[in-house]
Amino acid sequence: MDETMEQLILHEDRISGNCYKIRLTAALLGLPLERRQYDVLKNETRTPEFLGSINANGRIPVLQIGDKFLPESNAACWWLASRSPLVPDDRFDQADVLRWMFFEQYNHEPNVATIRFWKAFVGLDKLSEMQRMLVPAKEEAGAAALKLMDEHLEGRDWFVGAHLTLADICLYAYTHVAEEGGFALGNYPHVIGWLERMAAQPGYVAM
Amino acid sequence: MDETMEQLILHEDRISGNCYKIRLTAALLGLPLERRQYDVLKNETRTPEFLGSINANGRIPVLQIGDKFLPESNAACWWLASRSPLVPDDRFDQADVLRWMFFEQYNHEPNVATIRFWKAFVGLDKLSEMQRMLVPAKEEAGAAALKLMDEHLEGRDWFVGAHLTLADICLYAYTHVAEEGGFALGNYPHVIGWLERMAAQPGYVAM
Repeated sequence: MDETMEQLILHEDRISGNCYKIRLTAALLGLPLERRQYDVLKNETRTPEFLGSINANGRIPVLQIGDKFLPESNAACWWLASRSPLVPDDRFDQADVLRWMFFEQYNHEPNVATIRFWKAFVGLDKLSEMQRMLVPAKEEAGAAALKLMDEHLEGRDWFVGAHLTLADICLYAYTHVAEEGGFALGNYPHVIGWLERMAAQPGYVAM
Repeated sequence: MDETMEQLILHEDRISGNCYKIRLTAALLGLPLERRQYDVLKNETRTPEFLGSINANGRIPVLQIGDKFLPESNAACWWLASRSPLVPDDRFDQADVLRWMFFEQYNHEPNVATIRFWKAFVGLDKLSEMQRMLVPAKEEAGAAALKLMDEHLEGRDWFVGAHLTLADICLYAYTHVAEEGGFALGNYPHVIGWLERMAAQPGYVAM
């Protein structure tokens, strides 16, 4: 019938929250997703084959829709969720969902996700000198992003409007595993309540 | 009539390409925009007034739409351009526009824009030790982003489909001033042709 009938393949690494976002979006919408695994720690997304046919930027996730390839996790979520209630029709609310998705990629992911990756998967002792030097600044910026989220969630259930949207899904991915990076979620009580609401959604899948 | 009749106010700093994106989008669409200036070098976006009423994240640009505030440059562009030809209706193309906008905020802006800001506005001699240490990696990552753009533009006029979209506008902002950060645009001939096509658009405004 339409594009949702095309085969959907997620090129991913299980440890990546950016990949999990797409799985969670598909699960909440009831869309089937085939999964292909790559190990980023073994540079399996930097091979000539991957760069030539899947993503010239050498990164996962990539959502394959039939014979088309869509990199960037939040863009892939948008493709899945467009025309669903996860993307509001209201002009301001729709832009506001994107506002939080851009915040996620600019202020949250490079700090919360990177610190988690360095501490829980690479190992602090294996970081380069430059990476080690960046740890305190990224810890501080990650905590600031979580604090901003906590203040925004005071008195509201979801990031935009009265319902779950893509903004919640994209922010959830790395927030709910932030303690693997040493961030103390107990400092953010409104975030904890929101994490619980997310995990209670029908169709929810764990990372 | 509709939301476009509400007063639009751009809270901005003239030196910021992220602010310029919004001005350029509005100009190409013929939408009037009132402008309020803040000096980021003087921390005018970190005052209690700014944090309390305009953006708790302490950043410009913010697009004010009547009494609502929309941070994140690319989200503000989306609000302006949604329901216009700058945002394609086609499901894949629309997500692909966002793919390039997320690429811009994740791979391009933190490198190309930051290096320009440090070199042309802050001054290399005024950087912190950590910032100075980051310069080579950001120069390399910025050049890689420009190379990826150049390869994508080989044989095509615009980033997505056959027409100018928001993807072009958002990538244009910091690319066309990349030489202020020492990036040699002569290395990217397809980018240069595309910059010329952008500057020839009816309604184009300079930074």
